[in-house]
Amino acid sequence: MVLMKKDKTSHSSTKVVRKVESIKKPTHLRIVKSPRKVFKDLKLFATDVDGVLTDAGMYYGESGEELKKFNTRDGMGLKLLQAEGVIIAIITAEQTKIVTRRAKKLGIAEVFQGAKDKVTILTHLSKKFTIPYEQMAYMGDDVNDLGVLQKVGYAAAPADCVDQVRQVVHYVCQKKGGEGAVREVIDMILSARTR
Amino acid sequence: MVLMKKDKTSHSSTKVVRKVESIKKPTHLRIVKSPRKVFKDLKLFATDVDGVLTDAGMYYGESGEELKKFNTRDGMGLKLLQAEGVIIAIITAEQTKIVTRRAKKLGIAEVFQGAKDKVTILTHLSKKFTIPYEQMAYMGDDVNDLGVLQKVGYAAAPADCVDQVRQVVHYVCQKKGGEGAVREVIDMILSARTR
Amino acid sequence: MVLMKKDKTSHSSTKVVRKVESIKKPTHLRIVKSPRKVFKDLKLFATDVDGVLTDAGMYYGESGEELKKFNTRDGMGLKLLQAEGVIIAIITAEQTKIVTRRAKKLGIAEVFQGAKDKVTILTHLSKKFTIPYEQMAYMGDDVNDLGVLQKVGYAAAPADCVDQVRQVVHYVCQKKGGEGAVREVIDMILSARTR
Amino acid sequence: MVLMKKDKTSHSSTKVVRKVESIKKPTHLRIVKSPRKVFKDLKLFATDVDGVLTDAGMYYGESGEELKKFNTRDGMGLKLLQAEGVIIAIITAEQTKIVTRRAKKLGIAEVFQGAKDKVTILTHLSKKFTIPYEQMAYMGDDVNDLGVLQKVGYAAAPADCVDQVRQVVHYVCQKKGGEGAVREVIDMILSARTR
Repeated sequence: MVLMKKDKTSHSSTKVVRKVESIKKPTHLRIVKSPRKVFKDLKLFATDVDGVLTDAGMYYGESGEELKKFNTRDGMGLKLLQAEGVIIAIITAEQTKIVTRRAKKLGIAEVFQGAKDKVTILTHLSKKFTIPYEQMAYMGDDVNDLGVLQKVGYAAAPADCVDQVRQVVHYVCQKKGGEGAVREVIDMILSARTR
Repeated sequence: MVLMKKDKTSHSSTKVVRKVESIKKPTHLRIVKSPRKVFKDLKLFATDVDGVLTDAGMYYGESGEELKKFNTRDGMGLKLLQAEGVIIAIITAEQTKIVTRRAKKLGIAEVFQGAKDKVTILTHLSKKFTIPYEQMAYMGDDVNDLGVLQKVGYAAAPADCVDQVRQVVHYVCQKKGGEGAVREVIDMILSARTR
Repeated sequence: MVLMKKDKTSHSSTKVVRKVESIKKPTHLRIVKSPRKVFKDLKLFATDVDGVLTDAGMYYGESGEELKKFNTRDGMGLKLLQAEGVIIAIITAEQTKIVTRRAKKLGIAEVFQGAKDKVTILTHLSKKFTIPYEQMAYMGDDVNDLGVLQKVGYAAAPADCVDQVRQVVHYVCQKKGGEGAVREVIDMILSARTR
Repeated sequence: MVLMKKDKTSHSSTKVVRKVESIKKPTHLRIVKSPRKVFKDLKLFATDVDGVLTDAGMYYGESGEELKKFNTRDGMGLKLLQAEGVIIAIITAEQTKIVTRRAKKLGIAEVFQGAKDKVTILTHLSKKFTIPYEQMAYMGDDVNDLGVLQKVGYAAAPADCVDQVRQVVHYVCQKKGGEGAVREVIDMILSARTR
């Protein structure tokens, strides 16, 4: 299912700021008691696009954004995870044909672009597939990912995520976005499941 | 307001060289007494494009410059700063539709391209919005940014700026241009304002 | 000879996973007794494309994958090796005109795209040129390269290869894919041959 | 003057290999007795393109090479050097409209593409402007630059040059090609001249 929001006013900056403030002081660091169990029980892996599946680069030309740089090893990882029966979902505030193309290449059906409120999308996915948040993983890098990152059973971020994200995730990758950060997390998941 | 200079002879190299010499020996390092106060009072945030909002890359094809690589996290930062009521301005010596497109996407109205003399633009902005230089921040990376960097209340540069710029700014980022240097400065500003 | 497979289902993810498991626990680290002898006797140098000859970046635009970033110094290395009489081959699971173009520029005739099973291609090359696997080198970075890497006389991988590949190659480069990893290996080969 | 060689067989690989061997064992490291004097007397600054003015990336699309990534700070450096009266020349074995475009933007008239033998071009420049080799600087990164690098008064290379180049230059930059290596050298030259 592909949900395309036409509304261009997407993530109202004011709302984002308010959200940032509300999570400013985490009362405790988030620790997954048994990552291996979380990985074994995982049913859905969702991810942001820009800065996670890409190097955060927005390649602009005369006609606007023209290119995004994805990573071939992330692509292989997403395929391996699909082969394990895990549902893959993409949730992004941006809206481009570029993402549609990349998702199609990787056989990802759950693509949500122009997402004003990413938690709503997550709830939709939870209901549609009857999967609790605890059995979901999400990767994000910026303040508009904070809500989702705090809901899922396993939250991860690329090495170059913003500080607020660093404070709420279970794992910060050694790799940056677009350098294979997504594959880094997927390899941990696969390793736990095949042992 | 968009001001487009048609004159292609932009920054005469000779003039630039003269300017470089004149700032060669700074009599003292520049220190902001209270960065927090400067950040709280900030009314306008201006920035250069190439090497600051981009990775300094000029992607050339058969038809000339075809792409610039911006950063999605810089984009989010500029939106968050706008939501705080700070005016965003872009001042660049280059002149491309690429910048026009990126500025439009980010809702930036004050775009000055083909700027021969960036101080003149700054003065124009100061008068137009009745904002003193002390309440302005500017980010630049090369010798044609020296004049403006020495006028504003807070001057910052990406990690990979040239040496002459390094000598006159208040802050050199840990991040390079296009890697989120602009976001790095904006996050400091936002942090001071929300505390 | 250019062999183009039309089948888009290429590397079935399930098969890849099974292969990965089978090589999970190597009984011993692979050591080439005399690298110099292997380099001197080398008759064929084969390589993967994405992540080895490129920086793993898949540059997507509105029409799908639009660009791959190759390295000029890898290109020079491949030419120098050809001048030594070594046959160059490209074996990739992907299928693009981009690779056809780059191979043509470098004068590489043995280009195999859409390769479901890379070992089959290697066997084909071995028969066609009557060259035993021991006199072949191969560079790969991901799980679908594991079979070939374990067959050839000299197996190498770029610094940013996945862990499973790291476990089966003779040499892991200091350079990443697209940064000159291929040239790094070729320079070792040339150095051994010209001494 | 723009000299375009139509011959596509450019640098015969065999010849390159022979040249490499001949310079294999340098009898002594090259040291410039007085870099400051060399910089002050400099009349011509020539440079290779791929891997020096660019990040060595060859961005290929369906129609062949589509993009090269130049650096804005290198561009500013070349302009500053021109303002000092130093002649700028580009000498490259490749042949693209991309380079023609970039050279035009920077006001560089001496552009030599498809250069089979770079020393011949240097000799041509020496005669045309009556400038001895000692008053010329050249930057190159690969084996086909070795001849010119050994002729000029000041030879420099980007940090990621090949080993053979490293052995014959006076200076290896801290910066890689496309990251501002050319500007690094130019800033040293300008600093010596303005003191």
